[in-house]
Amino acid sequence: MTEGSGVTEGKDLMQAGNATRSSLMRQEIEQQPEALRATIEALLPRREEVAALAAGTKTVLFIARGTSDNAAVYGSYLIQAHAGRLTSLAAPSIATTYRAHVDLDGVLAVALSQSGRTEEIVETLEWAADCGARTMAITNGGDDSPLAEVAKLAFVTEAGVERAVPATKTFTTQLAALAVLGLGLGAPLDPGELRAVPDAVAELLARSEGAELDSIVGDLARVPGVVVSGRGMAYAAALELAIKLKEACYLHAMGLSYADLLHGPIAVVDADTPAIVVAADSGPTLPGSIDLARRVTGAGAATFGIGGGAELAAACTASLPGPVLPEWLAPIGLIVPGQLLTESLARRLGIDPDRPRGLSKVTQTD
Amino acid sequence: MTEGSGVTEGKDLMQAGNATRSSLMRQEIEQQPEALRATIEALLPRREEVAALAAGTKTVLFIARGTSDNAAVYGSYLIQAHAGRLTSLAAPSIATTYRAHVDLDGVLAVALSQSGRTEEIVETLEWAADCGARTMAITNGGDDSPLAEVAKLAFVTEAGVERAVPATKTFTTQLAALAVLGLGLGAPLDPGELRAVPDAVAELLARSEGAELDSIVGDLARVPGVVVSGRGMAYAAALELAIKLKEACYLHAMGLSYADLLHGPIAVVDADTPAIVVAADSGPTLPGSIDLARRVTGAGAATFGIGGGAELAAACTASLPGPVLPEWLAPIGLIVPGQLLTESLARRLGIDPDRPRGLSKVTQTD
Repeated sequence: MTEGSGVTEGKDLMQAGNATRSSLMRQEIEQQPEALRATIEALLPRREEVAALAAGTKTVLFIARGTSDNAAVYGSYLIQAHAGRLTSLAAPSIATTYRAHVDLDGVLAVALSQSGRTEEIVETLEWAADCGARTMAITNGGDDSPLAEVAKLAFVTEAGVERAVPATKTFTTQLAALAVLGLGLGAPLDPGELRAVPDAVAELLARSEGAELDSIVGDLARVPGVVVSGRGMAYAAALELAIKLKEACYLHAMGLSYADLLHGPIAVVDADTPAIVVAADSGPTLPGSIDLARRVTGAGAATFGIGGGAELAAACTASLPGPVLPEWLAPIGLIVPGQLLTESLARRLGIDPDRPRGLSKVTQTD
Repeated sequence: MTEGSGVTEGKDLMQAGNATRSSLMRQEIEQQPEALRATIEALLPRREEVAALAAGTKTVLFIARGTSDNAAVYGSYLIQAHAGRLTSLAAPSIATTYRAHVDLDGVLAVALSQSGRTEEIVETLEWAADCGARTMAITNGGDDSPLAEVAKLAFVTEAGVERAVPATKTFTTQLAALAVLGLGLGAPLDPGELRAVPDAVAELLARSEGAELDSIVGDLARVPGVVVSGRGMAYAAALELAIKLKEACYLHAMGLSYADLLHGPIAVVDADTPAIVVAADSGPTLPGSIDLARRVTGAGAATFGIGGGAELAAACTASLPGPVLPEWLAPIGLIVPGQLLTESLARRLGIDPDRPRGLSKVTQTD
């Protein structure tokens, strides 16, 4: 495993009782350009294999949990918006608990698991095959992981070993694999734009430090909860940031789409419950995201923007720049400021971001 | 509109500055047996119409937002577990914002909207028809609502006018309509069990008052956030309780499935963040729900049970009885103690449950 650059932030590290090195999580965040480059190099030439496997299918069924499920949300929007196919996010309990037979003829089932070893996900992909689906795995667990072994086609991401419990580089490389899946399914998008992602993420990392991040961390350290919102492709990054803040900072983070937030839970936003709005710098969902930020700010709550360009920044209390990427690839970069925010907030709160309570690296649920 | 029995709870009502009548929300909760009876009577004889409309289709696509989306989650589990069809929850922005063409040949699109007037939902159902889907509406807005008018088949629920902003009887009657949909799609379940639901809900309402509810309300009044969890069919009731607590009590309520909770966010549960576990009294997901309650209680957090029988109650700090219903229908009753909890907690917190901030009855999102 290649170690990252190990940026030192002496003051904050001492607060977490560890002045000798940066967190593993922080190192793994920094490794993302390299992990993405290796993954895209390995998988992009294989998009014809997706096309062959998917021939004659109409629907894509994603099978995943937790962070991998947030990646599946990205895949779901990408494929519906650009590849013209209906998608569905599986409820694994239908397979593993109800043991139901569902007609999956004409379905491409895509299972995502960082480790490739979560039994529930392996079992659900086997169930999908028994129900008539073609099967594909996206995993960082290698070609010999149980998930890759049961799938007809395996896309192995090249993130290297991930040691911090909160997933970072295994998430963004899953998104890259899903972008290749979208291209394989015929999305009329430019593969050259995907090849440019590692540099865009590296550039974003280089300019993500600073007073603005510290100031947002300081504000979030004082509140019990936060709403994280986004629309379309960016919704996946919002959900992923919400799960990170819950698992590594124990924050009451509620991930809600722009529209679902307005359908009721907008009431929860108040002076003690700020909103984080995540948006690409362009694309059809940007105007709605700017509106949402204005609405929350207008209601007297703080709003922190991630991405969304100058106009979203102007509508927010404070904001962090997003990646210079087209909308369909923006989520790969949009989560990066969120990862840095999570890591920094955990340390500010005296939590070791590498080992939050209650979690282990491979989660087993029945 | 028929008014409910108007149970008086003088002390709590005076705390909310209103001693003259019970809240509309409370009255509408009490009207549910009657609303369910009228809805089931109207729709159960029409299940053959569903069968005819769905002939030749394989997949069900639900189109909904907010509380209606939680109802769709119930429909999704019911149809996959018992009617052998794949389901998907639509992302309306694919239609209304991305304006994508998705191949929906062989798809039954079912749109749910309490009012039948939410433009985004009407527009998305029209989009589904343009993409090749058969279309159905489930609404309380009447046969002349825009949603019913654009759908090939309309199931109109008989909840009567709902005046409190938090939806109660329009939600449970949506679930009843979805149960009829499941039967129409061939689920080998007993329609007689559905006919017994109104009495089971009436019986549950009659025994839902008391010290246990007050004690849980008292505990929840002291915490900023709560996790609400459930598995399988009961997950829909957990999500719905979470949205109610957010919109009417401004509580940081995080609705998470049993498995997703274990995949990360379990870290958020602590002495200040109790869990509510919702479960049917029987069925394959009950053991996992009991395990979850034990795990949360074992971690030092309070756990409140809704339903789940004696064994779940024994694993919890305090609990409320659920309905005497088979698992496939249990969610219709399981939300009822949650509605009472929400209404009572809102008043305890000095909030008018009928008119929480930030909301109106018909929500429009672009």
